Amino acid sequence: MAITVVGSVAFDTVETPAGRRERCLAGAATYFSLAASFFTDVRVIAVVGEDFGPAEQAVFDARGIDTRGIERAPGKSFFWQGSYLDNLNEAKTLNTELNVFAGFQPKIPEVYSDSQYLFLANIDPVLQRRVREAMPQARLVAGDTMNYWIKDHRPALLEVLKGLDILLINDGETRMLAGNSNLLQAARSVMSLGPRMLVVKHGEYGSTLFHKAIPNERQSETFRAPAFPLDHVVDPTGAGDSFAGGFFGYLASQPELTPGAFRRAMFYGGVMGSFTVERFGTERLQELTREEIDKRFAQFRELTHLD
Amino acid sequence: MAITVVGSVAFDTVETPAGRRERCLAGAATYFSLAASFFTDVRVIAVVGEDFGPAEQAVFDARGIDTRGIERAPGKSFFWQGSYLDNLNEAKTLNTELNVFAGFQPKIPEVYSDSQYLFLANIDPVLQRRVREAMPQARLVAGDTMNYWIKDHRPALLEVLKGLDILLINDGETRMLAGNSNLLQAARSVMSLGPRMLVVKHGEYGSTLFHKAIPNERQSETFRAPAFPLDHVVDPTGAGDSFAGGFFGYLASQPELTPGAFRRAMFYGGVMGSFTVERFGTERLQELTREEIDKRFAQFRELTHLD
Repeated sequence: MAITVVGSVAFDTVETPAGRRERCLAGAATYFSLAASFFTDVRVIAVVGEDFGPAEQAVFDARGIDTRGIERAPGKSFFWQGSYLDNLNEAKTLNTELNVFAGFQPKIPEVYSDSQYLFLANIDPVLQRRVREAMPQARLVAGDTMNYWIKDHRPALLEVLKGLDILLINDGETRMLAGNSNLLQAARSVMSLGPRMLVVKHGEYGSTLFHKAIPNERQSETFRAPAFPLDHVVDPTGAGDSFAGGFFGYLASQPELTPGAFRRAMFYGGVMGSFTVERFGTERLQELTREEIDKRFAQFRELTHLD
Repeated sequence: MAITVVGSVAFDTVETPAGRRERCLAGAATYFSLAASFFTDVRVIAVVGEDFGPAEQAVFDARGIDTRGIERAPGKSFFWQGSYLDNLNEAKTLNTELNVFAGFQPKIPEVYSDSQYLFLANIDPVLQRRVREAMPQARLVAGDTMNYWIKDHRPALLEVLKGLDILLINDGETRMLAGNSNLLQAARSVMSLGPRMLVVKHGEYGSTLFHKAIPNERQSETFRAPAFPLDHVVDPTGAGDSFAGGFFGYLASQPELTPGAFRRAMFYGGVMGSFTVERFGTERLQELTREEIDKRFAQFRELTHLD
């Protein structure tokens, strides 16, 4: 089944202990769609500027991603500059230029309108809601958000949450959204706001899937997937978006959304995140093969299974 | 196979968001031996004062723990007072009174001398080394340590590490001991100091077992066990010692130390830690049953396994 994703397509300049890259192709929708493209058809809604040229277009084309929903606007693309020199787990933002993104009004191509899977990447919740409402046929809707929207745009975000099946955020965001430091209690509280499932990403410690429908006592209905112990993390940017792409892409590829499919999707999410951080920007995703993905999936299993 | 453990038997006064307890029976050797006693015979080497009475002795007796190595000395037992009011993940020490522990000279009863499993709980590395050398017959030796010894008693600690098969410490201690913030690199560096295996405890995120003998590339020889998502953590004290007791107790109960035995031991470690934090001090371990342990083991499996 095809996924439509709305989010940013951007250029990033990053510095990490491994080095520095100027203006690499990045943005949540880019990471997400590259990762998801290994599992299913992906359609992107975004806006880019005149600096998005044939080289960038070729990255999407090589993975067969439908970019008819990427609007070309006069000016420059969204630009972000960050540093991980002090802390590889948290970027220090040095510069953000919204550029063409400032006036982004998502336009959904008619050909996208049969997408049954919809992913709302981390953008203004007002836009997330607008896209969600414009695609009522979507039968599984997942989304991401961040501190900034949780803190300063809560009413708009709460409206988005009502329309989500699955929210994917990290520990800190979960605790902040719930106002509760106990993760299990916070997860239940977040799910009471709308999403029937919550994926909490723990960075190098993996991720946890919580279900709303299950009575509180059946702890076993929680699922915990590992992260992959890596020798060198070159650039952590995009790990969460790649996780989301692997997770949601795998789900969309499945004939039936069984509990087992969700468990495997958690593993594929971790797998895609683990590849992304091995190189700068989307470099690793651009050269990845399905064979490598399945090999690492098997390693994730060995990493966690008793026999 | 019997385990001999050397460490502290103490009284703790703790305050947590769940309440306050005065002078509960605690100490690393207490948590360890109670947890391990569900799997195998346990023998303790420690020192207590005159405040260690029949009620405290009865806790060990009820679990069939051999306490002939617990020396009774004039004065008071080791006492620790801490608070988790600000942070449930890290205790703030309010008071430490070494008391009889200040002059502790471990004495090993003759009847302990056939113990093939030896656990050196978190005490002065000079004492850990002395006990290790006095028990040359031990065929598997594991131990714990903490920031204080890593920082200020490094030469003595390095001597201990040379005699250890397995070191069990947390993330922060691993990174501090190795002087490296990448966990996989830090783990390899720690193992180059002696231990052929390293168990790194990640608190609420579980734990990871690293092997030295395996070539670096075979990542799958790393094993990651989960922690149990808990609604209420009443008192985190002793979680790490209980983990060690479950882990090492299970190993000692096995006829053969296969890779599968180590994986299951990691799960049992997490299981025992998860029980301990449900009540104050050792209260939960005192009333626990093997049936509850195996039920939770099955839940840990469901929490992490694909099918």
